[in-house]
Amino acid sequence: MIETDTLVIGAGPAGLFQVFELGLLEIGAHVVDSLHVPGGQLIELYPDKPIYDIPGIPACSARELVDNLLKQVEPFKPQLHLGQEVASLERQDDGRLLVGTSAGTTFLAKAVVIAGGVGSFQPRRLALPGLERHFDTQVFHGLRSLEPFAGRDVVVAGGVDAALDAALALSEPGPHRARSVTLLHRRDVFQAEAATIEHVRERIASGALTFVAGQPTGLEEAADGRLAALQITHGDAQTLRLPLDLLVVGLGLSPKLGPLAEWGVVLEKKQVVVDTGTFQTSVPGVFAVGDVVTYPGKKRLILSGFHEAALASFGIAALVYPDQRIQLQYTTTSTRLHELLGVPSP
Amino acid sequence: MIETDTLVIGAGPAGLFQVFELGLLEIGAHVVDSLHVPGGQLIELYPDKPIYDIPGIPACSARELVDNLLKQVEPFKPQLHLGQEVASLERQDDGRLLVGTSAGTTFLAKAVVIAGGVGSFQPRRLALPGLERHFDTQVFHGLRSLEPFAGRDVVVAGGVDAALDAALALSEPGPHRARSVTLLHRRDVFQAEAATIEHVRERIASGALTFVAGQPTGLEEAADGRLAALQITHGDAQTLRLPLDLLVVGLGLSPKLGPLAEWGVVLEKKQVVVDTGTFQTSVPGVFAVGDVVTYPGKKRLILSGFHEAALASFGIAALVYPDQRIQLQYTTTSTRLHELLGVPSP
Repeated sequence: MIETDTLVIGAGPAGLFQVFELGLLEIGAHVVDSLHVPGGQLIELYPDKPIYDIPGIPACSARELVDNLLKQVEPFKPQLHLGQEVASLERQDDGRLLVGTSAGTTFLAKAVVIAGGVGSFQPRRLALPGLERHFDTQVFHGLRSLEPFAGRDVVVAGGVDAALDAALALSEPGPHRARSVTLLHRRDVFQAEAATIEHVRERIASGALTFVAGQPTGLEEAADGRLAALQITHGDAQTLRLPLDLLVVGLGLSPKLGPLAEWGVVLEKKQVVVDTGTFQTSVPGVFAVGDVVTYPGKKRLILSGFHEAALASFGIAALVYPDQRIQLQYTTTSTRLHELLGVPSP
Repeated sequence: MIETDTLVIGAGPAGLFQVFELGLLEIGAHVVDSLHVPGGQLIELYPDKPIYDIPGIPACSARELVDNLLKQVEPFKPQLHLGQEVASLERQDDGRLLVGTSAGTTFLAKAVVIAGGVGSFQPRRLALPGLERHFDTQVFHGLRSLEPFAGRDVVVAGGVDAALDAALALSEPGPHRARSVTLLHRRDVFQAEAATIEHVRERIASGALTFVAGQPTGLEEAADGRLAALQITHGDAQTLRLPLDLLVVGLGLSPKLGPLAEWGVVLEKKQVVVDTGTFQTSVPGVFAVGDVVTYPGKKRLILSGFHEAALASFGIAALVYPDQRIQLQYTTTSTRLHELLGVPSP
């Protein structure tokens, strides 16, 4: 069992910055996230598309933002527990919260911060029995790197931005171009940015990308157990065999509120209601920040998550250091903060 | 008279980012600031000291932050009116606000945003009749560049960080070192960071810096009208003549709320009370963001000013576009925002 001041649920931008703000107040934190890498939604959805509205950063990709947040939080040595979901929360007699995860990790924390985006995100999967045997060897949820796909026959399943972006990236001329790219979606209608759809249609027209309309209903394995092809059913009940080396599933993410509802946290339209002074929820000791919260005027902006995390850290400080008056110190001038950050004081 | 959607009072980080957020909602803005350069308090106080708590920026100076904010806001061509203070505000029959500045500029705006830090900042001046004749030629408020001081006899007046930092910078070995640096303060007690004070004491001990305790009570001019020396009075009523080429006044900034109080804006301990959903003040059409505002949990953090500006822009949008439902669009994916920002859509 891990004892900690704070358990932060969610390693997206708000969760990572939460650890930084807690660190400035000398409050320790562990972080749990259902995804296998830190960064949250944006890293899964648009790792390399530019973001233009992070204050003071005219343009950056989600990947750069998350790398910089990880660098910023480094002095506080964040303990990340990835690939696991929070499964239970129970209050102890001393008021602390006992939290268990799907991987069997347990935490005893004075405060919990829900920084879980719009819930615990999981890549949507294709409902195809047997496909899970090929996960991470031939079947990938999302596109992290182009290299494994170079010169291979690739099928991309999905009709949202994630799939279209993957199909475009894989069919882009260059050293990592796939040998063939087939976009598979139930019909010739996509839910994505207009410009992306147009781009995809151009690629299809030029023959650089093949489009197949249909539903995958079965799979074929070779004698060595490798995934060899998908069986596709058309609208008119005809079937088609789609041979492939690799499959990219680009169905987007599925938000899942998880056990929140059971904890007694007051929700409003599936969002967590918080006090905007402390970002505490209706459950004492449980705080929430980022896209998962709601309050009058709330906008789901990364920059609002940062503000919410800063104020939540003061709310948590009142719990962790009940007898102290917590002063706001500035990183520009405070010698103590310079020590904590490991930077020279002038 | 300049007609505009919004007049932003204050060109600090919150005011500049306000223009950006308004721009994303296609709302125009002009900006007035009492200082002669954009950037607000930090640029005046600590232009080159690192800041460590801007989210996603592990370290930057105030100068870098402001340069990046100016770059970020560039697509919206902010109209800065510097070196002037807002002097009057009057509601017109059509509900718009007529705002006049000390420089005689007048604006007719649908909304006004007070982003004025803790008021309109002005460098504190030495109360020494006749000194103003030498402003900006021999007498400087704060240190912008070291070059004019190289090889000169310099007096630095003040006992706060601004003065101590200036004395340290001017006496630092290097090509721009002053010939002599005298730190003048009424007594040998400083109100500054402990490490800075220690550093100053070391310089004094080594002879690189001279300390004089006393009050300037008069000045001497040479035959050509140039400032030649200060007359200093000690605690024991003795006087001393302190010759100099240049004088740096480092007394810090003096906040001044200006005419706010007269506008009927409800204040609490000299801070502007706002609704945290829209950042509107008690006066319809007058919004406030940044260090000047107060609400439960408020912390004077730059990152909170950014959040406040984002939400205020939606509050203002409801005034400027009363008949439209304003949708939040994301800079990562919105083709319209890409057009406004002048960046390519993928």
